[in-house]
Amino acid sequence: MIGTDNKALENILTRTSVRSYSSGNVTDKELETVIRAAMSAPSAMNKQPWHFFVIRGAKLREAIAEMLEYGKQSLRNASAAIIIAGDKSRFFEDPEAVDYWVEDCSAAAENLLLAAHAIGLGAVWCGVYPIPSRIDQMRKATGIGDGYVPMCIIPLGHTEGDHEPKDKWDPAKVTYLD
Amino acid sequence: MIGTDNKALENILTRTSVRSYSSGNVTDKELETVIRAAMSAPSAMNKQPWHFFVIRGAKLREAIAEMLEYGKQSLRNASAAIIIAGDKSRFFEDPEAVDYWVEDCSAAAENLLLAAHAIGLGAVWCGVYPIPSRIDQMRKATGIGDGYVPMCIIPLGHTEGDHEPKDKWDPAKVTYLD
Repeated sequence: MIGTDNKALENILTRTSVRSYSSGNVTDKELETVIRAAMSAPSAMNKQPWHFFVIRGAKLREAIAEMLEYGKQSLRNASAAIIIAGDKSRFFEDPEAVDYWVEDCSAAAENLLLAAHAIGLGAVWCGVYPIPSRIDQMRKATGIGDGYVPMCIIPLGHTEGDHEPKDKWDPAKVTYLD
Repeated sequence: MIGTDNKALENILTRTSVRSYSSGNVTDKELETVIRAAMSAPSAMNKQPWHFFVIRGAKLREAIAEMLEYGKQSLRNASAAIIIAGDKSRFFEDPEAVDYWVEDCSAAAENLLLAAHAIGLGAVWCGVYPIPSRIDQMRKATGIGDGYVPMCIIPLGHTEGDHEPKDKWDPAKVTYLD
């Protein structure tokens, strides 16, 4: 396995969803680091159609946890959370291409999760878009307006306990076309 | 910048789209490595709704390049290409949640790009979904059937020339909600 002596690859293979955090603080520097990594993602026509809403205080995280039907414990125990949203002002005008923002923001979200893992933080992708009720709940709890579409919320904190990554390798999901 | 002495973070920050490749071969082991990384992505309810169609030979890459309106040079010069597709048998049945597959496959695609960069290969995400004509062209060129939705095609090869990563950090895209 190449992963064993390749730190970047190992980081990808060992990242897993972390929902339990100790009380240690996540610093502004760490938040900037993971967002910088997210912004390094590719995007269709380099539109970078993403926006990051950062929640550090417990009060707003509690309000979101109260309103959402899922991810409550993660949000409450985390030290911070980041909402990744699509920025409509950067979407394609062509209706056939408009939904590329979802792919772009998802690549950014994966970078954010990997960067968190790389600096010793735990995180989990809690889906919002495309479920209409979740989008509404998120708007109500945060005041995020119509110019943005909240895609996911990612609680972040210092990992508590053991989190064994799943081995999801499955050769049945690979087809060689030639 | 934490990136300078953190290999995993550096890999995320230095990855960039590579469209020029030397003639060196991409091995089956390397293809398995990048696909294994892709399968390490998170997915909503752990559905892993992805499938990987691998194209090693020049003939099929040429047929796809011929048919698609973009990415022609990358596909022709690459040593291999991987189509990441959604596997409809693993989609949510709930119509409101069905499109989570796009986010899941996008996270897998980003992992694949990062893993390629980590092992010294260059790659570029060429968008297919959601443009209907591109999906049709891809189906016609490859024979991928209705059970899968081709989301993107990623040519892979040994990087030729210098590829300076873009610095896309933009603090205007960050809002602190508290």
